[in-house]
Amino acid sequence: MMPELHPWAADLTELHMQVWTRLAGGVCDRRAPTRHPTLATVTPDDKPQARTVVLHAADKSIGTLDIHTDLHSSKVADLRTTPFAALHVWDAAARLQMRLGATATILTGPDVAALWAGGPAASRQSYGSHPAPGQPLAQALDYAKQPDPASFAVLRLTVHSIDALHLGADHRRARFDRDTCWVGTWLAP
Amino acid sequence: MMPELHPWAADLTELHMQVWTRLAGGVCDRRAPTRHPTLATVTPDDKPQARTVVLHAADKSIGTLDIHTDLHSSKVADLRTTPFAALHVWDAAARLQMRLGATATILTGPDVAALWAGGPAASRQSYGSHPAPGQPLAQALDYAKQPDPASFAVLRLTVHSIDALHLGADHRRARFDRDTCWVGTWLAP
Repeated sequence: MMPELHPWAADLTELHMQVWTRLAGGVCDRRAPTRHPTLATVTPDDKPQARTVVLHAADKSIGTLDIHTDLHSSKVADLRTTPFAALHVWDAAARLQMRLGATATILTGPDVAALWAGGPAASRQSYGSHPAPGQPLAQALDYAKQPDPASFAVLRLTVHSIDALHLGADHRRARFDRDTCWVGTWLAP
Repeated sequence: MMPELHPWAADLTELHMQVWTRLAGGVCDRRAPTRHPTLATVTPDDKPQARTVVLHAADKSIGTLDIHTDLHSSKVADLRTTPFAALHVWDAAARLQMRLGATATILTGPDVAALWAGGPAASRQSYGSHPAPGQPLAQALDYAKQPDPASFAVLRLTVHSIDALHLGADHRRARFDRDTCWVGTWLAP
């Protein structure tokens, strides 16, 4: 049984706002679906890749999102070759699929020193494993976590487009682009 | 609090089996996370794209998955240019991220006539909307669903690689490749 239409899904401006409200909610709330988007990239041999990431910042005013990652992960290698990223979230409670197109800047070293120092110690465990993420191991646990600020990177995503799809009794889909100051357009779902 | 290790995550063969068991479960069970994977593709202008899809078939014996789609959707256009696809699922209950790399074949017309005829009438509503998916509309509901077998396509994904990540007290990650008969290798998570 499809839920009623969420009122915000009937208006382009409110729908756009809702996307950013939900993204900001993911930064705060570990249980929000927007906390763990799927990040898609293009590999150096021109294949798609997708993996779960953790959303650490969302700034509607300038249209940026931050993802923290190990500098030696394959997503960083992908983005060095093709700096475009797609972010995908399905929010079941909102019946809302969010698809964001973005350009990624890889921030490291002094640019992220304050974020490293300000983050919780437990989170630092995620940056600096040896061998590096994706390297083969003889046994499953033949790796060590060695928190290392030199392995810490922030992917700053400058969002260029948002595709929002609300599933209700009637589906509604809209697209918002930076180039047109985020004025939305309805699309066929 | 991290859950205990799932026993199947400690053994490469069982982990590989678990991925396919969960994929097959998604075909049957509408509520399984594997029912709605995220499909990533590469656009003709070399950007990543990702969207939710519905898993309609999973055959471990030959390593294929079927996704049904409108022939006029952008994912079909993407796959015509770059036939590689990535499929992503996060199964929260299993604490398991599944990432599959595949080559997509686009089946249409007589090749899918039996699947069209055998599918539930309600599902056919998803294939053949006018205007086509992604086309701009003056108003949100300026589209009509006109079930049309000529708009029905099956994306048959021939899986080439599986990356499975189990999050427990210790994370375990493995990769399985068709080229090596799916014998797995542990990877650093």
